[in-house]
Amino acid sequence: MQLEIISKLINRFQKLPGVGYKTAQRYAYAIVDMDESSVEDFCNTLLTAKATVQYCDCCGNFSDKSTCSICIKRNSTTIVVVAYPKDVLALEKVGTGHLYHVLHGTLSPLEGRGVNDIRIKELLARVDKAEEVIIATNPDVEGEATAMYIAKLLKPFNVKVTRLAQGISMGSDIEYADEITLARAIEGRIEI
Amino acid sequence: MQLEIISKLINRFQKLPGVGYKTAQRYAYAIVDMDESSVEDFCNTLLTAKATVQYCDCCGNFSDKSTCSICIKRNSTTIVVVAYPKDVLALEKVGTGHLYHVLHGTLSPLEGRGVNDIRIKELLARVDKAEEVIIATNPDVEGEATAMYIAKLLKPFNVKVTRLAQGISMGSDIEYADEITLARAIEGRIEI
Repeated sequence: MQLEIISKLINRFQKLPGVGYKTAQRYAYAIVDMDESSVEDFCNTLLTAKATVQYCDCCGNFSDKSTCSICIKRNSTTIVVVAYPKDVLALEKVGTGHLYHVLHGTLSPLEGRGVNDIRIKELLARVDKAEEVIIATNPDVEGEATAMYIAKLLKPFNVKVTRLAQGISMGSDIEYADEITLARAIEGRIEI
Repeated sequence: MQLEIISKLINRFQKLPGVGYKTAQRYAYAIVDMDESSVEDFCNTLLTAKATVQYCDCCGNFSDKSTCSICIKRNSTTIVVVAYPKDVLALEKVGTGHLYHVLHGTLSPLEGRGVNDIRIKELLARVDKAEEVIIATNPDVEGEATAMYIAKLLKPFNVKVTRLAQGISMGSDIEYADEITLARAIEGRIEI
């Protein structure tokens, strides 16, 4: 008894990540309840974003030009390698001052993502201009495997390869820290 | 450092119900990652839905005509009153065979929704053709208050007013049922 166009709208919303039927239905009903100008504005924003946002030729981050503002303006010999554009945002909040390289994924044999599916070749092509490569993939199985693989590939190049420190997070409890985190925190201890 | 158009897209996604910044960001990135034809199709569906879906003049449910197919075709003297269009869908699965009346909300002084903000007047205008009104608002504070209010308004009309039975749900545990539910289940017990 659902109207066909509403079913179609629900189906389209389900293409967004993590959106199931009930959530999509909620969104579809909200769209029908919105006033027409809001829906038009929403669609225009979607289309404009899709039309203008591209990937930077150099680092692979989102950009509105063929080369992004960081790659053009920033003068650094350190490249921070991340899995996704959102990781660049998080690191930029700290103000690293470095260049970035976005892989657009991690190696994941289970999900069928191999070496050619992420931007490793592009990293190797620009690494000779760098003095240091900081690998900032997530400290999970896939992130670790990707970091190890990239580190191995970078061995022949004259470049220092580092990884983000692992240890206990600010504000967390040692009591509740898992064993691997604690072991890494002890391993990477620093003199004070 | 977020691109302006992406910030704008995130902002637009945040207008959907229950979508915070992180979720909106995830959706925005997914849109940028989609191919262009999918985004166009998504927007066309949104605009078509907004342009074609209206509210039925009679029952207030979603419809692609001025009067919905249920109001036109169905011959019944029972009106089921619900808060939202999605409730009609749920009841249609059971196949009530009755007519509906969608209030588009419940009375909620806290959220500033009063008698004139939901479709109560429209219900009173059509109730003289009915023999029974089944009030099927949610069994929460607002739903109960709305049901009581409508029941009071319908008193002067020559119509039977009923409310959905309340009790323990199929598959639930009596052990974990709350006291109000159990009390209502006992109160509404039926002979077998």
